[in-house]
Amino acid sequence: MKTRVGIYGYGNLGRGIENAIRQNPDMELIAVFTRRPPESVKIATEGAVVCGADDVEKYKGKIDVMIICGGSATDLPVQTPKLASMFSVVDSFDTHARIPEHFANVDAEAKKGGNVAMISVGWDPGMFSLNRFYAGVILPDGKDYTFWGKGVSQGHSDAIRRIDGVLDAKQYTIPIDRALEAVRSGADPELSTREKHVRECFVVAEEGADKDRIEKEIKEMPNYFADYDTTVHFISAEELKRDHGAIPHGGFVIRSGKTGAKLENKHIIEYSLKLDSNPEFTASVIVAFARAVNRMKNEGASGCKTVFDVPPIYLSPKTSEEIISSLL
Amino acid sequence: MKTRVGIYGYGNLGRGIENAIRQNPDMELIAVFTRRPPESVKIATEGAVVCGADDVEKYKGKIDVMIICGGSATDLPVQTPKLASMFSVVDSFDTHARIPEHFANVDAEAKKGGNVAMISVGWDPGMFSLNRFYAGVILPDGKDYTFWGKGVSQGHSDAIRRIDGVLDAKQYTIPIDRALEAVRSGADPELSTREKHVRECFVVAEEGADKDRIEKEIKEMPNYFADYDTTVHFISAEELKRDHGAIPHGGFVIRSGKTGAKLENKHIIEYSLKLDSNPEFTASVIVAFARAVNRMKNEGASGCKTVFDVPPIYLSPKTSEEIISSLL
Repeated sequence: MKTRVGIYGYGNLGRGIENAIRQNPDMELIAVFTRRPPESVKIATEGAVVCGADDVEKYKGKIDVMIICGGSATDLPVQTPKLASMFSVVDSFDTHARIPEHFANVDAEAKKGGNVAMISVGWDPGMFSLNRFYAGVILPDGKDYTFWGKGVSQGHSDAIRRIDGVLDAKQYTIPIDRALEAVRSGADPELSTREKHVRECFVVAEEGADKDRIEKEIKEMPNYFADYDTTVHFISAEELKRDHGAIPHGGFVIRSGKTGAKLENKHIIEYSLKLDSNPEFTASVIVAFARAVNRMKNEGASGCKTVFDVPPIYLSPKTSEEIISSLL
Repeated sequence: MKTRVGIYGYGNLGRGIENAIRQNPDMELIAVFTRRPPESVKIATEGAVVCGADDVEKYKGKIDVMIICGGSATDLPVQTPKLASMFSVVDSFDTHARIPEHFANVDAEAKKGGNVAMISVGWDPGMFSLNRFYAGVILPDGKDYTFWGKGVSQGHSDAIRRIDGVLDAKQYTIPIDRALEAVRSGADPELSTREKHVRECFVVAEEGADKDRIEKEIKEMPNYFADYDTTVHFISAEELKRDHGAIPHGGFVIRSGKTGAKLENKHIIEYSLKLDSNPEFTASVIVAFARAVNRMKNEGASGCKTVFDVPPIYLSPKTSEEIISSLL
């Protein structure tokens, strides 16, 4: 029997989930839930339906795993606990500092409902977390480095768009090669924020706007840009659309560690991603973990789980024998 | 209470295990078992004892996990099933083609003894297997590549040493940059054996030996060298010792995959290792999985397991709360 999936929220991530389900023949999309008028939302999957978000409760028992595609700032803190009381769920909550609080809220509701709720699934948090974890248990004496990019940061692009006189903007986070090479060499450098990444901004300004003022406001914006070397390019709306329409991302997780009687031997573990589409890759990770969530639920588990709790084998539709003979 | 570990076989890997245990304060070395006269073996851990391999049964109940450090060709197929009937065990069995058979033998004995036996732990098989696995479940439409090196291949070095007139030898497997770059570009190249790696050999010949004949025998050796571009350097025993005494290794696991409605987006997942000491890194992986084996056994599990069965959290001495707040 196929794993019956619901998608709650149909933006970039939700569409990515729909595509990923089609690449996994053991998964089946049942319904998409949206806060927009359902008749205004067209989906690509024959046989699946579009419902209003308020109708979700009617699907209790008809959906094995609900994948929640809301934003971390205000949607997921409300949606995930609420939906976890009705369904097994997966979300991609990515506000690192608030994960313990989110975990506690989701755990309580998932346990009440007898469901499995997996939070913070994707690539960071998600696969990057897993790789930091594995590298850390293997090399307890060592140092972790994470670099992001080259990729589009949605939060930073939004911050630029809020500046007076800005019509649209795209911000790229770019790791600095020199820093990456220093880490890979095993030199264990201490790197400041400015030494790890640069930020490059493509901005469409209103006609007649004061570009010098906009550039200054960007470069001096605390938290977002002030600690980085930032470059600002003013371009036309057409150029932004033509040259900066994609949503690439990626990054590097590196651990440099030591072993030996006198810790005389160095080891470098590196995991990296180069992604044409950030939401589609995130979706692909989530769909694999949705499979595991369903298995854990079928085994009688309940409560909030993370990627650290999942035996890898649960992520695959293949049998243990197939996996051992082909991949071990 | 600490996890009480035994080491069965005290060569490079066994010594690596001993060092790794000292880097993990929740683990404790109880005894080293050796086929040599025990009084001839000096270990570095105060409080641990050296015993003859035949005395191992006396340690039933005194050791939580026995780490078996024999060779895959003849030792482990016998040792792992036998020891799994008495102890929970970990081995690093690496003859890929014979893993299913080894699994079945070990599984039967481990179940009889009520023990957990984990086979094929290390980096390949081991962490490379896990990374091929994770990348494959995330990107079902894709292609896997594994490159090894730069590193010393023990099997190939041994094969050279068996040639008439050869006193000693060290063989390096080296991935070809051009091939790596083609894979990383997302071009999904079809690569022949010769296009992926070169082999470089450092050979100490007997005085007066026919070097041309030795070089020819190496380069034409089927399976080992004939399918590769191989270079042979004749050096002195002193040079071999001075310049080629270390046991570095490493490699790359890369998956190139596609997502999107028309599979129009490319993604590259890459995992790489750069290791000063192959046996010490292998040992570090094994010690982390030994911790997990002990937990699984304490939970009542039994039988043969692989790295795919282990919830990552079992590998860490830290609590779930610590891990979630620091690594997710």
